[in-house]
Amino acid sequence: MSLPEINSRERFKPILFTNDASNESYYRISLGNLQFGGDEIVLIAGPCAVESEEQILLSATLAKEVGVKMLRGGIFKPRTSPYSFQGLGMPALEWFRKAADKVSLPIVSEVMDVEQVDQFEPYVDVLQIGSRNMQNFSLLKRVGQSHRPILLKRGMSATYWELINAAMYIAEEGNTQIILCERGIRTFSDFTRNTFDVAIIPKLKQECKLPVIADPSHASGDSKLVIPLALSAIAAGADGIMVEFHPNPQQAKSDAKQALSPEQLKTLALQLRSLAVAMGRRFGE
Amino acid sequence: MSLPEINSRERFKPILFTNDASNESYYRISLGNLQFGGDEIVLIAGPCAVESEEQILLSATLAKEVGVKMLRGGIFKPRTSPYSFQGLGMPALEWFRKAADKVSLPIVSEVMDVEQVDQFEPYVDVLQIGSRNMQNFSLLKRVGQSHRPILLKRGMSATYWELINAAMYIAEEGNTQIILCERGIRTFSDFTRNTFDVAIIPKLKQECKLPVIADPSHASGDSKLVIPLALSAIAAGADGIMVEFHPNPQQAKSDAKQALSPEQLKTLALQLRSLAVAMGRRFGE
Amino acid sequence: MSLPEINSRERFKPILFTNDASNESYYRISLGNLQFGGDEIVLIAGPCAVESEEQILLSATLAKEVGVKMLRGGIFKPRTSPYSFQGLGMPALEWFRKAADKVSLPIVSEVMDVEQVDQFEPYVDVLQIGSRNMQNFSLLKRVGQSHRPILLKRGMSATYWELINAAMYIAEEGNTQIILCERGIRTFSDFTRNTFDVAIIPKLKQECKLPVIADPSHASGDSKLVIPLALSAIAAGADGIMVEFHPNPQQAKSDAKQALSPEQLKTLALQLRSLAVAMGRRFGE
Amino acid sequence: MSLPEINSRERFKPILFTNDASNESYYRISLGNLQFGGDEIVLIAGPCAVESEEQILLSATLAKEVGVKMLRGGIFKPRTSPYSFQGLGMPALEWFRKAADKVSLPIVSEVMDVEQVDQFEPYVDVLQIGSRNMQNFSLLKRVGQSHRPILLKRGMSATYWELINAAMYIAEEGNTQIILCERGIRTFSDFTRNTFDVAIIPKLKQECKLPVIADPSHASGDSKLVIPLALSAIAAGADGIMVEFHPNPQQAKSDAKQALSPEQLKTLALQLRSLAVAMGRRFGE
Repeated sequence: MSLPEINSRERFKPILFTNDASNESYYRISLGNLQFGGDEIVLIAGPCAVESEEQILLSATLAKEVGVKMLRGGIFKPRTSPYSFQGLGMPALEWFRKAADKVSLPIVSEVMDVEQVDQFEPYVDVLQIGSRNMQNFSLLKRVGQSHRPILLKRGMSATYWELINAAMYIAEEGNTQIILCERGIRTFSDFTRNTFDVAIIPKLKQECKLPVIADPSHASGDSKLVIPLALSAIAAGADGIMVEFHPNPQQAKSDAKQALSPEQLKTLALQLRSLAVAMGRRFGE
Repeated sequence: MSLPEINSRERFKPILFTNDASNESYYRISLGNLQFGGDEIVLIAGPCAVESEEQILLSATLAKEVGVKMLRGGIFKPRTSPYSFQGLGMPALEWFRKAADKVSLPIVSEVMDVEQVDQFEPYVDVLQIGSRNMQNFSLLKRVGQSHRPILLKRGMSATYWELINAAMYIAEEGNTQIILCERGIRTFSDFTRNTFDVAIIPKLKQECKLPVIADPSHASGDSKLVIPLALSAIAAGADGIMVEFHPNPQQAKSDAKQALSPEQLKTLALQLRSLAVAMGRRFGE
Repeated sequence: MSLPEINSRERFKPILFTNDASNESYYRISLGNLQFGGDEIVLIAGPCAVESEEQILLSATLAKEVGVKMLRGGIFKPRTSPYSFQGLGMPALEWFRKAADKVSLPIVSEVMDVEQVDQFEPYVDVLQIGSRNMQNFSLLKRVGQSHRPILLKRGMSATYWELINAAMYIAEEGNTQIILCERGIRTFSDFTRNTFDVAIIPKLKQECKLPVIADPSHASGDSKLVIPLALSAIAAGADGIMVEFHPNPQQAKSDAKQALSPEQLKTLALQLRSLAVAMGRRFGE
Repeated sequence: MSLPEINSRERFKPILFTNDASNESYYRISLGNLQFGGDEIVLIAGPCAVESEEQILLSATLAKEVGVKMLRGGIFKPRTSPYSFQGLGMPALEWFRKAADKVSLPIVSEVMDVEQVDQFEPYVDVLQIGSRNMQNFSLLKRVGQSHRPILLKRGMSATYWELINAAMYIAEEGNTQIILCERGIRTFSDFTRNTFDVAIIPKLKQECKLPVIADPSHASGDSKLVIPLALSAIAAGADGIMVEFHPNPQQAKSDAKQALSPEQLKTLALQLRSLAVAMGRRFGE
């Protein structure tokens, strides 16, 4: 019955870790003409929640115009309170897919349990594991058996090592198409909703083969800080940015304070483009 | 489609909150001759993981002798690394039930997903939701439909308000038999594994109708600190203590550093007894 | 010029560390018939700031009646904002000394710079180093040359090891009469002003020869939590408690929310007395 | 005696806060042909400690060559342990001034108490207040009376509001030549020495008139992360970067792990130059 503990860094090495600073050693995750982990800087945007067929179609159209390469949108929302808006469920997912097809963009959405993985797999291009579920090991194992790439968000109080291990739960099941995402951690600092731990981006890029993106919307909870944080993430080496935006932020059913307006999204895209040049990367073509 | 946000403190009031400092307003959770939320101070103890039929029977017998009123033991272990010992699964649960029946004690064990709730309900007296799953809302809803009491552990970076809301996810489904548990939070402080936030105990006792216990083993990760922290929790008003102990701590398959030895468990029970008197409460009869 | 780093744990050993769990190895700090570090549990109380001759005399009289053994009171207040009440300065110190002499109690007050040490030494029995100055090394060195005992409060984000080292800065100058004080640390947890890290009390008592007390007023910032936290500290092994109290808390010029009323102070004293018995210690004679 | 609390945000407004996003409202701090708070991105570099006349002259020469505009160097070092290297004191300051004059660069160095301010004022161009002293109010008041600009580092657990208030202690004495510096905060995250809170940079730039720089060396404690963090700070809007570098990092007497080598410093300067263009700013001329 004795089961010796295996030094997990050793086990991880060939699968997740790299000592090779050259680009060759990184995993690339391709979705149509989009690629994570290469030269490209990917902008993912969309509303916190899919709220109606019109809202998501308008969001998709506006996003496409400014250079967004993947759409995000919540179907079932993980909310602190059981009395808060919980998302519209499966009908919203159909609207989301239809809108995305109209503008020819892939979509990512969060799954909160094993059952939702079955429901989401036919519709979404990337399955998202949210912060609260980063150590939901049953869920990690299930998405490890999916043929879809996984967007794995760092837990609110997860260490670097715990994030790596969560990815390993997925990879061990056979799915190494994993995109890591920094989205802010819990600290005493109270001028933002969370503290954006930008240093984990270069740390992950130096040691790990997986693409890394950042979510400055949840990190800050403040639309005025989203653009500078997005730029800081790219300057630190991130492969992409995921932001919340809303055709009309004042009317958003959730997280209104952090959603970019269409104008702000356009500004972000413009600034990412010129930053990409300085960083020797590509944006938006 | 508009779904107005309801002030959740208002909604919570009749179910979870109390303004009444008298004991009358608290929920009592009874299991045989054991009661949480009344005068009694309950000691819960057992190994981190059920490792063999002999180990759990020996643990149960030793625990019973010193005044332990409920047994704990891990069946499926939530471990940071996929290569760490993951628990022995359902056979271990049968051993656990058999050992508990032999010494006539109730048992509590952690469920990590919805499927395990179905498997565990026939065997355990109390279902535990672990820290990593405090905001696994699918799981909270499922145990809200259980007829078993729930032991809900605070998440590693959960605020007071988030803990209350997690309880509310369970209560809204109809199950108000919830025991809350402080088990340490993530901070910069590095001499313990987590920082034991003892202040949440009186805060919860003053505002909320639910019983509150503490887990000083996971809070500290250090067996030398378990007894003083257990005493501090009771002095702060806790209704019980849950500790890890092992018949032979050096041989424990997991968390060996934090497990009490049988002698230490006995010392803890003795000190709880005299502290209970000073606090106007009962222990161990 | 090469100056080798000395393993400081080795250097500390004979001065601050103990491997001897027996009481013999602890430092005792005596002030009249009061002793820190022995069997006695010491209650220190007083207003946040000395506000008038009447207020401090009334405070001293009320405190003496219920068993308080040392008075605290702020002369120069370290305040976040330069526009907040900064304390009344040297006249207040004279009132404080006079009031204390009237009731025959020793006093402790905070010094914020080297110059104030010179001013305070003739008046106070114990010099307090506040949290914000725990690593004000110039100040630590100066009080290390004082003949007065030092009350050293843990910094808001000081690790265990940094606290030990701050004490060592004092001890190295020749003054080993140091009382350590846990007063809460900065974390994400927001229902209290700080998070009371009760575990550092037994950790210090097990490893270090110095007396350890707790300040539940600053730890919680909430008078409703002060008594349970005080009891938790004693149960964890603390040698004393320092609390803020005010003859009329609603009229306090600073920190009103955390000040105990005279009735609450009396209740605290009563509960400490019965807890002391359970812990095999003495209170209040 | 009653002293009403003044709403300090109101008091601060005309002195520190701005509602004007245009550049006009910012304070500019000029030192020779160098300016903080305008278009320029300023690189400050130098060894953790001034270790010898040769070391500081070599450092200064190397720094000058790659575009560094101000030199940093420790004279008295604030060290956790009293047994660690404490800096070489006043002779080192003379070497530092001489070396700086040789390469025609201004210098900044940390003062730890009021007495050192008197000693340093004739030698340094900018007085630094270190993290541990951000709320050493006596020291803040003293440098508020200095004619030298002040580099104020954020405390390890200081909130945004506390940092603003610390600056206000200085400004109230008449000195508004204050440069703020983010240098990492204390959190649970353990892959870096501190967590670099990059979001405070745009927050300060949006609300406050003062120049803001970042210290990625102390934030990360890891030379491999210094360059990406420096770039992230500039992308987030910082006015400059302060880094530790050493002619030969392996031989540094303190903080060797975080010091850039001359080659790394050169790389940083090159990358800052191209990033400055993308951000519409200037570097290095």
